[in-house]
Amino acid sequence: MDAHKQLTIGLFGFGTVGEGLYKVLQQTPSLNATIKKICIKNPEKKRDAPANLFTTERNELLFDPEINVIVEVINETEPAFQIVSTALKNKKAVVSASKKMIAEHLPEMLELQQQTGEPFLYEASCCASIPVLRNLEEYYDNDLLHSIQAIVNGSTNFILTKMFEEKLDFHEALLLAQQLGFAESDPALDIEGHDAVNKWAIMLAHAYGIIEHPQKLVFNGIENVNLGDAAVAKEKNHDIKLVAQAKKLANGKVAAFVLPQFVKQENHLAFVRNEYNGVVIESGFADKQFFYGKGAGSFPTASAVLSDISALRYQYKYEYKKLYHHVPNKLTSDFFVKAYVSFDDWKFIPREKFEWIEEWHAGEARKYLVGGLHFSELQENSWWKENNTSLILLPDAIIEDIEIRKLKKKSLELAGVV
Amino acid sequence: MDAHKQLTIGLFGFGTVGEGLYKVLQQTPSLNATIKKICIKNPEKKRDAPANLFTTERNELLFDPEINVIVEVINETEPAFQIVSTALKNKKAVVSASKKMIAEHLPEMLELQQQTGEPFLYEASCCASIPVLRNLEEYYDNDLLHSIQAIVNGSTNFILTKMFEEKLDFHEALLLAQQLGFAESDPALDIEGHDAVNKWAIMLAHAYGIIEHPQKLVFNGIENVNLGDAAVAKEKNHDIKLVAQAKKLANGKVAAFVLPQFVKQENHLAFVRNEYNGVVIESGFADKQFFYGKGAGSFPTASAVLSDISALRYQYKYEYKKLYHHVPNKLTSDFFVKAYVSFDDWKFIPREKFEWIEEWHAGEARKYLVGGLHFSELQENSWWKENNTSLILLPDAIIEDIEIRKLKKKSLELAGVV
Repeated sequence: MDAHKQLTIGLFGFGTVGEGLYKVLQQTPSLNATIKKICIKNPEKKRDAPANLFTTERNELLFDPEINVIVEVINETEPAFQIVSTALKNKKAVVSASKKMIAEHLPEMLELQQQTGEPFLYEASCCASIPVLRNLEEYYDNDLLHSIQAIVNGSTNFILTKMFEEKLDFHEALLLAQQLGFAESDPALDIEGHDAVNKWAIMLAHAYGIIEHPQKLVFNGIENVNLGDAAVAKEKNHDIKLVAQAKKLANGKVAAFVLPQFVKQENHLAFVRNEYNGVVIESGFADKQFFYGKGAGSFPTASAVLSDISALRYQYKYEYKKLYHHVPNKLTSDFFVKAYVSFDDWKFIPREKFEWIEEWHAGEARKYLVGGLHFSELQENSWWKENNTSLILLPDAIIEDIEIRKLKKKSLELAGVV
Repeated sequence: MDAHKQLTIGLFGFGTVGEGLYKVLQQTPSLNATIKKICIKNPEKKRDAPANLFTTERNELLFDPEINVIVEVINETEPAFQIVSTALKNKKAVVSASKKMIAEHLPEMLELQQQTGEPFLYEASCCASIPVLRNLEEYYDNDLLHSIQAIVNGSTNFILTKMFEEKLDFHEALLLAQQLGFAESDPALDIEGHDAVNKWAIMLAHAYGIIEHPQKLVFNGIENVNLGDAAVAKEKNHDIKLVAQAKKLANGKVAAFVLPQFVKQENHLAFVRNEYNGVVIESGFADKQFFYGKGAGSFPTASAVLSDISALRYQYKYEYKKLYHHVPNKLTSDFFVKAYVSFDDWKFIPREKFEWIEEWHAGEARKYLVGGLHFSELQENSWWKENNTSLILLPDAIIEDIEIRKLKKKSLELAGVV
């Protein structure tokens, strides 16, 4: 595609994002991009665009030789995969916002890009208006990226903010998020952490060249976080956030997961309130950087799609530098995490799994402890997210040094605790 | 230049940034970019790189047909201009970090880019590690960019932070900044606001298509901000920051300037402490975004230069969209600003120039007032930065509605004040 060539778009999906994009494109004539056809599922719905733009026939877009860009912003994973694959094979550039599809089909998508040489861009899939993928791809060489911590799901962050600032309980806050349109249609996607871990799988590919199925990553949402946890956090002058993080350990391997975490006031992520997203990147040369913006919503997402469309004009492609131009980083679960765990009954807590326990508190209704766990425990078992148990990492949760384990255990033995 | 073609670099300057770049490039072999020759001024200085890389002869780089990229990170404006101009005319891509040169020669640089078709990139000139120029260029269509507020000078921000947090006076804080290497060799460039307004002139071109000589913009530094002002700010629970800002007014014109300002705690800029920079962008679609990172220093600047070099591989050029693809925005001085002014003696203050005065305070040594001024007063006269007078804007300082002027004046007349 030549620079400044007319972009003729076939758009799949006319929900909030698709309609947002349609409106945004009308207001940015400088892009020299027009939507030729829009493929939708239900032709009966009333839509705020000329009727002759719409079709229900996929192939009218996918096999139209005039259409050189397919933009896919539908909600269903498998149809999205079919559309994107066919479009790439038909030598069309593709822009997508389907995070679940991309995260789950990343290996196939990589292969398709290599086979066809066509650009496949999906900035809108992660953190919407924050240009995080492009920045991870362009600005950080993998040897230099020490860590990333991010709030990538706006609805859970909104809920946590309301629990903290307005003392709403989880269900009241969720209801409010739904009323305001911040929650996915199926709230489980947000509150169980699926949406966040899908984004995280995509970001790990661009940050570290790590390709891992999202469901194989350790993650949780916030559904077990309760007002008691919030009160404990307040006491310590911390917030609770659902934090996606990755850190390069001393042995060169990468620790990565999505878990609720106590966040200190001076942490940049404490700054991220309500439905916003934020990304903190620590790197060797650029030091600490922080990107902040709206992570969801019609126009923020559409503006990210637009930036991808704009990038197509100068033949931009992801190079997946960390994957193809380096020895990609490897995930590890050989480290420890320091966590707060609150629970209803001791019987749900396998105390022997803790490397050490340094604090415990037995209230009438709710109990909690603070201790250290080997990360593989979180990977292999799920007691920590069952039976209303709430596991929240402490700040600086990742502990690499195995000596700590022995020391702590010893000190507890000496104290007669274990 | 083909995508992935070998980049052969001629580097001008081997100060902190040049040497940083040399080291960064050695650690990023994936870039496929090598420095063939480095032009320096003083051949006697000991340098941490092979002697055969260095030359004092400009034309060895500028006329070497093998060199396809000139990177210019020297400190002097006119030589930088000569080097960059010659390189572009010789069909070489150019990366520069010389903010003063770029700001002052923007019209010529635009013409040269149009004549030669060569890319001229200068991400490192503004906010170093924050990719602000590329984001302004790519992500915001001009109709949609409501406002930008930014802290673009790290040394003044460091000084203000120390005045606030450690109660150092201005000169102690400046000395500390110099000891830590955060201040320009000539501190006047920082503290009088020249460095900030140079960056602002560059950013206005990419944000709004406004091309204005930096010395024609209204600006000030922080040299008259004193501990008394800091105490007043503290009382109001505000910080004082040197804020570069631009705002699209209701009439479509743009208000733009660089002035000290009281900043509320909830403003994202309050988050920017010490030598860091931050940019808050409000736009129609992406809502409010915040970029934060190191704004100066060897490696942060080098990493920005590196990102430009990387972008050259896929033929990236600034399009100056807001300038060439739209009717560019126009600057206006037809609005009001609300300001706090502290001073030694009433005789330095032309009270009649104030549209209204809503607060005044006469201490023994130092006096202050809060009132409204037409912006043209700041443009046409300089009493507000002379005689140790300190003008600091209030939060939300820009007032568009002329009715306010009349109302305020009337209320003061009624009260018998004027």
